[in-house]
Amino acid sequence: MADATARDVGEFGLIARVIDRLAGSPSVLLGPGDDAAVVAAPDGRVVATTDVLVEGVHFRRDWSSAYDVGRKAAASNLADIAAMGARGTALLVGLAAPADLPLAWSLELTDGLRDEAVLVGAAVVGGDVVRSDTLVISVTALGDLDGRDPITRSGARPGDVVVLAGELGRSAAGMGLLEAGTREGELVDAHRRPTPPYDMGPVLALAGATAMCDISDGLVADLGHVARASGVHIDLDAADELFLTGGEDHALVATLPGGAAVPEGARVIGRVLAGEPAVTVAGQPSRGGWDHFA
Amino acid sequence: MADATARDVGEFGLIARVIDRLAGSPSVLLGPGDDAAVVAAPDGRVVATTDVLVEGVHFRRDWSSAYDVGRKAAASNLADIAAMGARGTALLVGLAAPADLPLAWSLELTDGLRDEAVLVGAAVVGGDVVRSDTLVISVTALGDLDGRDPITRSGARPGDVVVLAGELGRSAAGMGLLEAGTREGELVDAHRRPTPPYDMGPVLALAGATAMCDISDGLVADLGHVARASGVHIDLDAADELFLTGGEDHALVATLPGGAAVPEGARVIGRVLAGEPAVTVAGQPSRGGWDHFA
Repeated sequence: MADATARDVGEFGLIARVIDRLAGSPSVLLGPGDDAAVVAAPDGRVVATTDVLVEGVHFRRDWSSAYDVGRKAAASNLADIAAMGARGTALLVGLAAPADLPLAWSLELTDGLRDEAVLVGAAVVGGDVVRSDTLVISVTALGDLDGRDPITRSGARPGDVVVLAGELGRSAAGMGLLEAGTREGELVDAHRRPTPPYDMGPVLALAGATAMCDISDGLVADLGHVARASGVHIDLDAADELFLTGGEDHALVATLPGGAAVPEGARVIGRVLAGEPAVTVAGQPSRGGWDHFA
Repeated sequence: MADATARDVGEFGLIARVIDRLAGSPSVLLGPGDDAAVVAAPDGRVVATTDVLVEGVHFRRDWSSAYDVGRKAAASNLADIAAMGARGTALLVGLAAPADLPLAWSLELTDGLRDEAVLVGAAVVGGDVVRSDTLVISVTALGDLDGRDPITRSGARPGDVVVLAGELGRSAAGMGLLEAGTREGELVDAHRRPTPPYDMGPVLALAGATAMCDISDGLVADLGHVARASGVHIDLDAADELFLTGGEDHALVATLPGGAAVPEGARVIGRVLAGEPAVTVAGQPSRGGWDHFA
Protein backbone atom coordinates (compact mmCIF):
# COMPACT_ATOMS: atom_id res chain seq x y z
CA MET A 1 0.00 0.00 0.00
CA ALA A 2 3.07 2.27 0.07
CA ASP A 3 2.19 3.62 -3.40
CA ALA A 4 -1.59 3.60 -2.88
CA THR A 5 -3.64 6.52 -4.20
CA ALA A 6 -7.00 8.01 -3.29
CA ARG A 7 -8.51 5.96 -6.13
CA ASP A 8 -7.11 2.71 -4.72
CA VAL A 9 -8.71 3.05 -1.30
CA GLY A 10 -11.88 4.91 -2.41
CA GLU A 11 -13.64 7.81 -0.74
CA PHE A 12 -14.74 5.89 2.34
CA GLY A 13 -11.40 4.09 2.68
CA LEU A 14 -9.60 7.42 2.59
CA ILE A 15 -11.98 9.00 5.10
CA ALA A 16 -11.57 6.06 7.50
CA ARG A 17 -7.76 6.31 7.30
CA VAL A 18 -7.86 10.07 7.85
CA ILE A 19 -10.15 9.75 10.87
CA ASP A 20 -7.82 7.14 12.36
CA ARG A 21 -5.03 9.73 12.55
CA LEU A 22 -6.98 12.50 14.23
CA ALA A 23 -6.76 13.52 17.85
CA GLY A 24 -9.57 14.55 20.18
CA SER A 25 -9.95 17.68 22.28
CA PRO A 26 -12.16 18.66 25.22
CA SER A 27 -13.98 20.98 22.78
CA VAL A 28 -15.04 18.08 20.54
CA LEU A 29 -18.38 16.72 21.76
CA LEU A 30 -18.97 14.64 18.60
CA GLY A 31 -16.09 14.09 16.22
CA PRO A 32 -15.87 13.01 12.57
CA GLY A 33 -17.97 10.25 11.04
CA ASP A 34 -21.53 11.52 11.32
CA ASP A 35 -23.50 14.01 9.20
CA ALA A 36 -21.97 16.84 11.24
CA ALA A 37 -19.74 17.39 14.26
CA VAL A 38 -20.70 18.98 17.55
CA VAL A 39 -18.23 21.42 19.14
CA ALA A 40 -18.41 23.14 22.51
CA ALA A 41 -19.25 26.86 22.32
CA PRO A 42 -19.33 27.74 26.02
CA ASP A 43 -19.34 31.47 25.27
CA GLY A 44 -22.73 31.16 23.51
CA ARG A 45 -21.12 32.62 20.36
CA VAL A 46 -18.85 30.92 17.86
CA VAL A 47 -16.11 32.61 15.84
CA ALA A 48 -15.76 31.15 12.33
CA THR A 49 -13.50 31.69 9.32
CA THR A 50 -12.63 29.90 6.06
CA ASP A 51 -9.46 29.91 3.94
CA VAL A 52 -8.88 28.03 0.71
CA LEU A 53 -5.42 26.88 -0.46
CA VAL A 54 -4.83 25.91 -4.09
CA GLU A 55 -1.84 23.98 -5.40
CA GLY A 56 0.36 26.23 -7.52
CA VAL A 57 -1.12 29.39 -5.98
CA HIS A 58 -0.70 28.88 -2.22
CA PHE A 59 1.65 25.91 -2.09
CA ARG A 60 3.79 23.70 -4.32
CA ARG A 61 4.22 20.00 -3.70
CA ASP A 62 7.88 20.24 -4.74
CA TRP A 63 8.52 23.06 -2.24
CA SER A 64 6.52 21.89 0.77
CA SER A 65 5.81 18.49 2.26
CA ALA A 66 2.19 17.45 2.75
CA TYR A 67 2.78 17.78 6.49
CA ASP A 68 3.91 21.39 6.09
CA VAL A 69 0.95 22.21 3.83
CA GLY A 70 -1.34 20.87 6.56
CA ARG A 71 0.42 22.93 9.23
CA LYS A 72 0.18 26.07 7.07
CA ALA A 73 -3.47 25.53 6.10
CA ALA A 74 -4.42 25.17 9.76
CA ALA A 75 -2.22 28.10 10.79
CA SER A 76 -3.72 30.58 8.34
CA ASN A 77 -7.19 29.88 9.74
CA LEU A 78 -6.28 29.65 13.40
CA ALA A 79 -4.44 32.98 13.08
CA ASP A 80 -7.72 34.55 11.90
CA ILE A 81 -9.44 33.17 15.00
CA ALA A 82 -6.66 34.58 17.22
CA ALA A 83 -6.99 37.94 15.43
CA MET A 84 -10.54 38.22 16.82
CA GLY A 85 -9.14 37.71 20.33
CA ALA A 86 -10.52 34.17 20.36
CA ARG A 87 -9.23 30.68 21.09
CA GLY A 88 -9.42 28.05 18.33
CA THR A 89 -11.61 25.03 19.09
CA ALA A 90 -12.08 23.07 15.87
CA LEU A 91 -11.15 22.68 12.20
CA LEU A 92 -13.22 21.33 9.31
CA VAL A 93 -11.31 20.38 6.17
CA GLY A 94 -12.45 19.98 2.58
CA LEU A 95 -9.98 18.17 0.34
CA ALA A 96 -10.54 18.26 -3.42
CA ALA A 97 -7.86 15.98 -4.85
CA PRO A 98 -6.85 14.22 -8.06
CA ALA A 99 -7.68 10.51 -7.95
CA ASP A 100 -3.96 9.72 -8.29
CA LEU A 101 -2.95 11.75 -5.23
CA PRO A 102 -0.78 9.43 -3.13
CA LEU A 103 -2.59 8.17 -0.06
CA ALA A 104 0.52 9.02 1.97
CA TRP A 105 0.18 12.68 0.94
CA SER A 106 -3.40 12.88 2.26
CA LEU A 107 -2.41 11.23 5.53
CA GLU A 108 0.62 13.47 6.08
CA LEU A 109 -1.58 16.49 5.33
CA THR A 110 -3.92 15.23 8.04
CA ASP A 111 -1.03 14.91 10.49
CA GLY A 112 0.00 18.51 9.80
CA LEU A 113 -3.52 19.84 10.30
CA ARG A 114 -3.85 17.83 13.51
CA ASP A 115 -0.50 18.92 14.95
CA GLU A 116 -1.10 22.63 14.27
CA ALA A 117 -4.58 22.39 15.81
CA VAL A 118 -3.13 20.76 18.92
CA LEU A 119 -0.99 23.90 19.51
CA VAL A 120 -4.15 25.82 20.45
CA GLY A 121 -6.09 22.88 21.95
CA ALA A 122 -8.27 22.47 18.86
CA ALA A 123 -8.96 19.36 16.76
CA VAL A 124 -10.08 18.40 13.28
CA VAL A 125 -13.77 17.50 13.68
CA GLY A 126 -15.03 16.96 10.16
CA GLY A 127 -14.57 17.44 6.47
CA ASP A 128 -15.17 16.18 3.00
CA VAL A 129 -13.06 14.42 0.37
CA VAL A 130 -13.90 14.79 -3.32
CA ARG A 131 -12.26 14.29 -6.70
CA SER A 132 -10.85 17.31 -8.57
CA ASP A 133 -8.25 17.92 -11.28
CA THR A 134 -6.78 20.71 -9.13
CA LEU A 135 -5.64 20.02 -5.57
CA VAL A 136 -7.63 22.37 -3.32
CA ILE A 137 -7.67 22.42 0.48
CA SER A 138 -10.41 24.34 2.22
CA VAL A 139 -10.18 24.83 5.96
CA THR A 140 -12.78 26.30 8.30
CA ALA A 141 -11.72 27.16 11.85
CA LEU A 142 -14.05 27.70 14.80
CA GLY A 143 -13.19 29.50 18.01
CA ASP A 144 -14.50 30.65 21.35
CA LEU A 145 -14.34 34.16 22.83
CA ASP A 146 -14.37 33.03 26.49
CA GLY A 147 -16.69 35.94 27.32
CA ARG A 148 -14.58 38.67 25.69
CA ASP A 149 -15.82 41.03 22.98
CA PRO A 150 -14.53 40.17 19.50
CA ILE A 151 -11.75 42.53 18.33
CA THR A 152 -12.71 43.78 14.86
CA ARG A 153 -10.84 45.95 12.36
CA SER A 154 -13.06 48.97 12.92
CA GLY A 155 -12.23 50.11 16.43
CA ALA A 156 -8.87 51.90 15.97
CA ARG A 157 -8.94 55.49 17.28
CA PRO A 158 -6.56 58.45 16.92
CA GLY A 159 -4.10 58.34 19.80
CA ASP A 160 -3.85 54.53 19.76
CA VAL A 161 -0.48 52.87 19.24
CA VAL A 162 0.05 50.10 16.70
CA VAL A 163 1.62 46.97 18.17
CA LEU A 164 2.96 43.83 16.51
CA ALA A 165 3.22 40.28 17.85
CA GLY A 166 5.15 37.77 15.79
CA GLU A 167 7.53 37.92 12.86
CA LEU A 168 7.15 39.75 9.53
CA GLY A 169 8.84 39.30 6.19
CA ARG A 170 10.34 35.89 6.93
CA SER A 171 7.79 33.91 4.91
CA ALA A 172 8.23 36.21 1.91
CA ALA A 173 12.02 36.02 2.22
CA GLY A 174 11.75 32.23 2.33
CA MET A 175 9.59 32.19 -0.78
CA GLY A 176 12.21 34.29 -2.54
CA LEU A 177 14.86 31.76 -1.59
CA LEU A 178 12.67 28.86 -2.79
CA GLU A 179 12.18 30.64 -6.11
CA ALA A 180 15.96 31.03 -6.36
CA GLY A 181 16.48 27.30 -5.79
CA THR A 182 17.24 27.10 -2.06
CA ARG A 183 15.47 24.20 -0.37
CA GLU A 184 16.70 24.38 3.22
CA GLY A 185 17.13 26.90 5.98
CA GLU A 186 15.27 28.90 8.60
CA LEU A 187 13.61 31.34 6.19
CA VAL A 188 12.53 28.58 3.81
CA ASP A 189 10.97 26.79 6.79
CA ALA A 190 9.27 30.04 7.84
CA HIS A 191 7.57 30.08 4.43
CA ARG A 192 6.60 26.42 4.59
CA ARG A 193 5.30 26.56 8.13
CA PRO A 194 4.41 29.93 9.64
CA THR A 195 4.28 30.21 13.42
CA PRO A 196 1.48 32.64 14.32
CA PRO A 197 1.56 33.93 17.91
CA TYR A 198 -1.84 32.39 18.72
CA ASP A 199 -1.77 33.13 22.44
CA MET A 200 -1.21 36.84 21.77
CA GLY A 201 -4.74 37.17 20.31
CA PRO A 202 -6.50 36.77 23.65
CA VAL A 203 -3.58 38.54 25.42
CA LEU A 204 -3.94 41.64 23.22
CA ALA A 205 -7.75 41.53 23.62
CA LEU A 206 -7.32 41.54 27.42
CA ALA A 207 -4.76 44.37 27.07
CA GLY A 208 -7.52 46.54 25.60
CA ALA A 209 -6.98 46.13 21.84
CA THR A 210 -9.33 48.43 19.91
CA ALA A 211 -8.67 46.71 16.56
CA MET A 212 -6.71 43.66 15.46
CA CYS A 213 -5.95 41.59 12.36
CA ASP A 214 -3.52 38.96 11.21
CA ILE A 215 -0.95 39.67 8.50
CA SER A 216 -1.66 37.46 5.52
CA ASP A 217 -1.28 39.89 2.59
CA GLY A 218 1.43 42.18 4.05
CA LEU A 219 1.51 44.70 6.90
CA VAL A 220 0.61 47.75 4.80
CA ALA A 221 -2.17 45.94 2.91
CA ASP A 222 -3.74 44.45 6.02
CA LEU A 223 -3.44 47.66 8.04
CA GLY A 224 -5.08 49.36 5.06
CA HIS A 225 -8.22 47.38 5.87
CA VAL A 226 -8.02 48.55 9.48
CA ALA A 227 -7.51 52.18 8.38
CA ARG A 228 -10.55 52.06 6.07
CA ALA A 229 -12.78 50.15 8.52
CA SER A 230 -11.84 52.46 11.40
CA GLY A 231 -11.67 55.70 9.41
CA VAL A 232 -8.16 56.55 10.62
CA HIS A 233 -4.68 57.27 9.34
CA ILE A 234 -2.03 54.80 10.45
CA ASP A 235 1.62 55.89 10.42
CA LEU A 236 4.24 53.19 10.80
CA ASP A 237 7.81 53.61 12.00
CA ALA A 238 10.44 53.31 9.27
CA ALA A 239 11.08 49.70 8.27
CA ASP A 240 12.43 47.69 5.35
CA GLU A 241 10.36 46.74 2.31
CA LEU A 242 9.95 43.06 3.13
CA PHE A 243 8.71 43.86 6.63
CA LEU A 244 6.06 46.14 5.13
CA THR A 245 4.86 44.03 2.23
CA GLY A 246 5.67 40.37 3.00
CA GLY A 247 2.57 38.29 3.64
CA GLU A 248 1.80 34.86 5.08
CA ASP A 249 3.69 35.15 8.35
CA HIS A 250 0.36 35.48 10.15
CA ALA A 251 1.73 37.85 12.75
CA LEU A 252 -0.91 39.76 14.73
CA VAL A 253 -1.13 43.53 14.58
CA ALA A 254 -3.35 45.43 17.00
CA THR A 255 -4.10 48.95 18.10
CA LEU A 256 -4.00 49.74 21.80
CA PRO A 257 -5.11 52.93 23.57
CA GLY A 258 -2.10 55.23 23.97
CA GLY A 259 -2.05 54.81 27.74
CA ALA A 260 -2.37 51.01 27.80
CA ALA A 261 0.52 48.81 28.88
CA VAL A 262 2.00 46.93 25.91
CA PRO A 263 2.00 43.25 26.89
CA GLU A 264 5.13 41.12 26.75
CA GLY A 265 5.48 39.60 23.28
CA ALA A 266 4.24 42.73 21.48
CA ARG A 267 6.15 45.84 20.37
CA VAL A 268 5.09 49.28 19.18
CA ILE A 269 5.55 49.79 15.41
CA GLY A 270 3.42 52.88 14.74
CA ARG A 271 0.66 55.27 15.70
CA VAL A 272 -3.00 55.92 14.83
CA LEU A 273 -3.71 59.49 13.67
CA ALA A 274 -6.83 61.39 12.68
CA GLY A 275 -7.24 61.92 8.95
CA GLU A 276 -8.28 60.28 5.71
CA PRO A 277 -7.88 56.47 5.78
CA ALA A 278 -4.29 55.72 4.79
CA VAL A 279 -1.19 53.85 5.83
CA THR A 280 2.07 55.76 5.71
CA VAL A 281 5.62 54.94 6.76
CA ALA A 282 7.37 57.73 8.69
CA GLY A 283 4.85 60.07 7.08
CA GLN A 284 5.52 58.89 3.52
CA PRO A 285 3.10 57.02 1.22
CA SER A 286 3.60 53.26 0.96
CA ARG A 287 2.24 50.52 -1.20
CA GLY A 288 2.13 46.74 -0.90
CA GLY A 289 -0.16 43.76 -0.83
CA TRP A 290 -1.43 40.83 -2.78
CA ASP A 291 -4.53 40.30 -4.92
CA HIS A 292 -5.39 36.75 -5.94
CA PHE A 293 -6.85 37.73 -9.32
CA ALA A 294 -4.45 40.52 -10.27
CA MET B 1 -19.24 45.49 -16.65
CA ALA B 2 -21.75 42.95 -18.02
CA ASP B 3 -18.90 40.73 -19.25
CA ALA B 4 -16.58 41.41 -16.32
CA THR B 5 -14.57 38.53 -14.82
CA ALA B 6 -13.03 37.84 -11.42
CA ARG B 7 -9.72 39.09 -12.85
CA ASP B 8 -11.28 42.41 -13.94
CA VAL B 9 -12.55 43.35 -10.47
CA GLY B 10 -9.79 41.67 -8.45
CA GLU B 11 -10.05 39.67 -5.26
CA PHE B 12 -11.16 42.57 -3.06
CA GLY B 13 -13.53 43.94 -5.71
CA LEU B 14 -15.18 40.55 -5.99
CA ILE B 15 -15.43 40.14 -2.22
CA ALA B 16 -17.00 43.60 -1.85
CA ARG B 17 -19.59 42.81 -4.53
CA VAL B 18 -20.40 39.46 -2.95
CA ILE B 19 -20.83 40.97 0.52
CA ASP B 20 -23.18 43.60 -0.96
CA ARG B 21 -25.63 40.86 -1.96
CA LEU B 22 -25.76 39.02 1.35
CA ALA B 23 -28.58 39.15 3.87
CA GLY B 24 -28.33 39.28 7.64
CA SER B 25 -29.94 37.04 10.24
CA PRO B 26 -30.54 37.31 13.99
CA SER B 27 -27.86 34.61 14.39
CA VAL B 28 -25.19 36.79 12.76
CA LEU B 29 -23.49 38.88 15.44
CA LEU B 30 -20.60 39.92 13.16
CA GLY B 31 -20.91 39.33 9.43
CA PRO B 32 -18.41 39.18 6.59
CA GLY B 33 -15.49 41.57 6.18
CA ASP B 34 -13.33 40.94 9.22
CA ASP B 35 -10.79 38.20 9.98
CA ALA B 36 -13.65 35.97 11.13
CA ALA B 37 -17.40 36.11 11.71
CA VAL B 38 -19.22 35.75 15.03
CA VAL B 39 -22.37 33.62 15.09
CA ALA B 40 -24.82 33.07 17.95
CA ALA B 41 -24.58 29.62 19.55
CA PRO B 42 -27.22 29.94 22.29
CA ASP B 43 -27.17 26.21 22.99
CA GLY B 44 -23.51 26.38 24.08
CA ARG B 45 -22.65 23.81 21.39
CA VAL B 46 -22.29 24.36 17.65
CA VAL B 47 -23.05 21.78 14.95
CA ALA B 48 -20.66 22.02 11.98
CA THR B 49 -20.27 20.29 8.62
CA THR B 50 -18.37 20.85 5.34
CA ASP B 51 -19.16 19.77 1.77
CA VAL B 52 -17.07 20.47 -1.32
CA LEU B 53 -18.56 20.72 -4.83
CA VAL B 54 -16.33 20.44 -7.89
CA GLU B 55 -17.29 21.46 -11.42
CA GLY B 56 -17.66 18.41 -13.62
CA VAL B 57 -18.09 16.10 -10.62
CA HIS B 58 -20.94 17.68 -8.63
CA PHE B 59 -22.30 20.21 -11.09
CA ARG B 60 -21.99 21.31 -14.70
CA ARG B 61 -22.25 24.96 -15.75
CA ASP B 62 -24.16 23.91 -18.90
CA TRP B 63 -26.71 21.96 -16.83
CA SER B 64 -27.21 24.25 -13.85
CA SER B 65 -27.30 28.01 -13.44
CA ALA B 66 -24.95 29.62 -10.93
CA TYR B 67 -28.00 30.39 -8.82
CA ASP B 68 -28.99 26.71 -8.73
CA VAL B 69 -25.43 25.63 -7.90
CA GLY B 70 -25.55 28.03 -4.95
CA ARG B 71 -28.91 26.69 -3.80
CA LYS B 72 -27.65 23.11 -4.06
CA ALA B 73 -24.32 23.78 -2.34
CA ALA B 74 -26.14 25.37 0.59
CA ALA B 75 -28.80 22.65 0.64
CA SER B 76 -26.35 19.77 0.85
CA ASN B 77 -24.77 21.29 3.95
CA LEU B 78 -27.93 22.54 5.64
CA ALA B 79 -29.45 19.06 5.20
CA ASP B 80 -26.51 17.64 7.17
CA ILE B 81 -27.27 20.12 9.95
CA ALA B 82 -30.97 19.12 9.91
CA ALA B 83 -29.93 15.44 10.02
CA MET B 84 -28.41 16.07 13.47
CA GLY B 85 -31.77 17.46 14.63
CA ALA B 86 -30.35 21.00 14.51
CA ARG B 87 -31.31 24.33 13.00
CA GLY B 88 -28.92 25.97 10.51
CA THR B 89 -27.50 29.33 11.59
CA ALA B 90 -24.68 30.25 9.21
CA LEU B 91 -22.73 29.35 6.08
CA LEU B 92 -19.09 30.00 5.20
CA VAL B 93 -18.15 29.68 1.55
CA GLY B 94 -14.79 29.08 -0.12
CA LEU B 95 -14.75 29.79 -3.85
CA ALA B 96 -11.75 28.61 -5.88
CA ALA B 97 -12.37 29.98 -9.37
CA PRO B 98 -10.62 30.48 -12.70
CA ALA B 99 -9.63 34.14 -13.22
CA ASP B 100 -11.92 34.27 -16.27
CA LEU B 101 -15.02 33.18 -14.32
CA PRO B 102 -17.72 35.73 -15.19
CA LEU B 103 -18.41 38.12 -12.33
CA ALA B 104 -22.13 37.53 -12.91
CA TRP B 105 -21.63 33.81 -12.23
CA SER B 106 -20.05 34.50 -8.81
CA LEU B 107 -22.80 36.94 -7.89
CA GLU B 108 -25.63 34.59 -8.93
CA LEU B 109 -23.94 31.81 -6.96
CA THR B 110 -24.00 34.15 -3.97
CA ASP B 111 -27.72 34.82 -4.48
CA GLY B 112 -28.44 31.09 -4.52
CA LEU B 113 -26.45 30.47 -1.34
CA ARG B 114 -28.19 33.40 0.35
CA ASP B 115 -31.70 32.35 -0.68
CA GLU B 116 -31.29 28.74 0.43
CA ALA B 117 -29.86 29.89 3.78
CA VAL B 118 -32.84 32.21 4.27
CA LEU B 119 -35.15 29.15 4.15
CA VAL B 120 -33.83 28.05 7.55
CA GLY B 121 -33.13 31.52 8.96
CA ALA B 122 -29.39 31.24 8.33
CA ALA B 123 -27.03 33.60 6.48
CA VAL B 124 -23.67 33.57 4.71
CA VAL B 125 -21.24 35.02 7.25
CA GLY B 126 -17.85 34.61 5.65
CA GLY B 127 -15.65 32.95 3.11
CA ASP B 128 -12.66 33.15 0.86
CA VAL B 129 -12.10 33.73 -2.86
CA VAL B 130 -9.00 32.34 -4.57
CA ARG B 131 -7.75 31.56 -8.06
CA SER B 132 -7.84 27.94 -9.30
CA ASP B 133 -7.87 26.18 -12.68
CA THR B 134 -10.77 24.03 -11.45
CA LEU B 135 -13.96 25.64 -10.12
CA VAL B 136 -14.42 24.38 -6.55
CA ILE B 137 -17.03 25.52 -4.05
CA SER B 138 -16.55 24.60 -0.42
CA VAL B 139 -19.38 25.27 2.02
CA THR B 140 -19.36 24.95 5.79
CA ALA B 141 -22.67 25.10 7.63
CA LEU B 142 -23.13 25.82 11.33
CA GLY B 143 -26.22 25.01 13.37
CA ASP B 144 -27.76 25.13 16.81
CA LEU B 145 -29.36 22.26 18.76
CA ASP B 146 -31.73 24.46 20.80
CA GLY B 147 -31.06 22.30 23.85
CA ARG B 148 -31.76 18.94 22.18
CA ASP B 149 -29.31 16.03 22.02
CA PRO B 150 -27.70 15.60 18.58
CA ILE B 151 -29.16 12.63 16.65
CA THR B 152 -26.24 10.52 15.45
CA ARG B 153 -26.11 7.46 13.19
CA SER B 154 -25.31 5.08 16.04
CA GLY B 155 -28.50 5.00 18.10
CA ALA B 156 -30.80 2.73 16.04
CA ARG B 157 -32.11 -0.24 18.05
CA PRO B 158 -33.94 -3.46 17.10
CA GLY B 159 -37.68 -2.79 17.22
CA ASP B 160 -37.33 0.76 15.83
CA VAL B 161 -39.13 1.72 12.64
CA VAL B 162 -37.36 3.49 9.75
CA VAL B 163 -39.10 6.68 8.65
CA LEU B 164 -38.48 8.93 5.66
CA ALA B 165 -39.14 12.66 5.26
CA GLY B 166 -38.74 14.14 1.80
CA GLU B 167 -38.43 12.75 -1.72
CA LEU B 168 -36.07 10.07 -3.02
CA GLY B 169 -34.90 9.23 -6.53
CA ARG B 170 -36.02 12.47 -8.14
CA SER B 171 -32.54 14.05 -8.31
CA ALA B 172 -31.07 10.89 -9.85
CA ALA B 173 -33.96 10.68 -12.34
CA GLY B 174 -33.37 14.32 -13.24
CA MET B 175 -29.66 13.69 -13.79
CA GLY B 176 -30.57 10.80 -16.10
CA LEU B 177 -32.79 13.13 -18.10
CA LEU B 178 -30.02 15.78 -18.28
CA GLU B 179 -27.59 13.14 -19.54
CA ALA B 180 -30.17 12.21 -22.19
CA GLY B 181 -30.44 15.84 -23.33
CA THR B 182 -33.55 17.06 -21.51
CA ARG B 183 -33.09 20.56 -20.09
CA GLU B 184 -36.48 21.35 -18.53
CA GLY B 185 -39.02 19.76 -16.26
CA GLU B 186 -39.77 18.94 -12.63
CA LEU B 187 -37.24 16.12 -12.29
CA VAL B 188 -34.47 18.12 -13.95
CA ASP B 189 -35.21 20.93 -11.49
CA ALA B 190 -35.15 18.41 -8.62
CA HIS B 191 -31.58 17.53 -9.65
CA ARG B 192 -30.53 21.15 -10.02
CA ARG B 193 -32.09 22.28 -6.78
CA PRO B 194 -32.93 19.69 -4.13
CA THR B 195 -35.49 20.63 -1.48
CA PRO B 196 -34.46 19.00 1.80
CA PRO B 197 -37.18 18.88 4.48
CA TYR B 198 -35.13 21.02 6.88
CA ASP B 199 -37.86 21.48 9.48
CA MET B 200 -38.28 17.72 9.80
CA GLY B 201 -34.82 17.39 11.38
CA PRO B 202 -35.83 19.03 14.66
CA VAL B 203 -39.35 17.53 14.35
CA LEU B 204 -37.97 13.99 14.13
CA ALA B 205 -35.55 14.70 16.99
CA LEU B 206 -38.48 15.82 19.15
CA ALA B 207 -40.42 12.71 18.03
CA GLY B 208 -37.74 10.58 19.67
CA ALA B 209 -35.45 9.72 16.73
CA THR B 210 -32.76 7.25 17.84
CA ALA B 211 -30.67 7.76 14.66
CA MET B 212 -30.89 10.04 11.63
CA CYS B 213 -29.00 10.91 8.46
CA ASP B 214 -29.59 12.73 5.19
CA ILE B 215 -29.62 10.87 1.88
CA SER B 216 -26.75 12.13 -0.25
CA ASP B 217 -25.31 8.88 -1.66
CA GLY B 218 -28.53 6.82 -1.88
CA LEU B 219 -30.91 5.33 0.70
CA VAL B 220 -29.22 1.93 0.90
CA ALA B 221 -25.70 3.40 1.03
CA ASP B 222 -26.55 5.99 3.69
CA LEU B 223 -28.58 3.54 5.80
CA GLY B 224 -25.57 1.22 5.52
CA HIS B 225 -23.65 3.77 7.61
CA VAL B 226 -26.46 3.75 10.20
CA ALA B 227 -26.53 -0.07 10.24
CA ARG B 228 -22.78 -0.26 10.81
CA ALA B 229 -22.64 2.56 13.37
CA SER B 230 -25.60 1.17 15.30
CA GLY B 231 -24.75 -2.53 14.90
CA VAL B 232 -28.20 -3.40 13.52
CA HIS B 233 -29.86 -4.95 10.49
CA ILE B 234 -32.19 -2.61 8.60
CA ASP B 235 -34.89 -4.12 6.40
CA LEU B 236 -36.65 -1.80 3.98
CA ASP B 237 -40.06 -2.30 2.41
CA ALA B 238 -40.00 -3.22 -1.28
CA ALA B 239 -39.29 -0.19 -3.50
CA ASP B 240 -37.95 0.60 -6.95
CA GLU B 241 -34.25 0.82 -7.79
CA LEU B 242 -34.05 4.60 -8.13
CA PHE B 243 -35.71 5.10 -4.73
CA LEU B 244 -33.10 2.84 -3.15
CA THR B 245 -29.95 4.08 -4.87
CA GLY B 246 -30.59 7.64 -6.07
CA GLY B 247 -28.57 10.22 -4.15
CA GLU B 248 -28.56 14.00 -3.74
CA ASP B 249 -32.23 14.49 -2.85
CA HIS B 250 -31.14 15.18 0.75
CA ALA B 251 -34.23 13.56 2.22
CA LEU B 252 -33.97 12.73 5.92
CA VAL B 253 -34.21 9.16 7.15
CA ALA B 254 -34.57 8.40 10.85
CA THR B 255 -35.25 5.53 13.18
CA LEU B 256 -38.01 5.93 15.77
CA PRO B 257 -38.87 3.63 18.68
CA GLY B 258 -41.59 1.15 17.58
CA GLY B 259 -44.20 2.73 19.83
CA ALA B 260 -43.50 6.38 18.92
CA ALA B 261 -46.02 8.41 16.92
CA VAL B 262 -44.74 9.06 13.40
CA PRO B 263 -44.93 12.84 12.88
CA GLU B 264 -46.77 14.38 9.96
CA GLY B 265 -44.40 14.69 7.00
CA ALA B 266 -42.69 11.35 7.64
CA ARG B 267 -43.69 7.83 6.58
CA VAL B 268 -42.57 4.34 7.62
CA ILE B 269 -40.34 2.64 5.01
CA GLY B 270 -38.76 -0.20 7.02
CA ARG B 271 -37.79 -1.77 10.29
CA VAL B 272 -34.69 -2.20 12.46
CA LEU B 273 -33.85 -5.83 13.34
CA ALA B 274 -31.19 -7.53 15.44
CA GLY B 275 -28.38 -9.12 13.46
CA GLU B 276 -25.18 -8.44 11.60
CA PRO B 277 -25.01 -4.88 10.16
CA ALA B 278 -26.77 -4.96 6.79
CA VAL B 279 -29.44 -3.24 4.73
CA THR B 280 -31.91 -5.54 2.98
CA VAL B 281 -35.05 -4.89 0.95
CA ALA B 282 -37.99 -7.14 1.86
CA GLY B 283 -35.40 -9.54 3.28
CA GLN B 284 -33.25 -9.62 0.13
CA PRO B 285 -29.68 -8.24 -0.26
CA SER B 286 -29.37 -4.84 -1.95
CA ARG B 287 -26.55 -2.72 -3.23
CA GLY B 288 -26.22 0.92 -4.14
CA GLY B 289 -24.23 4.04 -3.45
CA TRP B 290 -21.61 6.40 -4.76
CA ASP B 291 -17.88 6.60 -4.18
CA HIS B 292 -16.07 9.74 -5.34
CA PHE B 293 -12.83 7.96 -6.23
CA ALA B 294 -14.24 4.68 -7.63
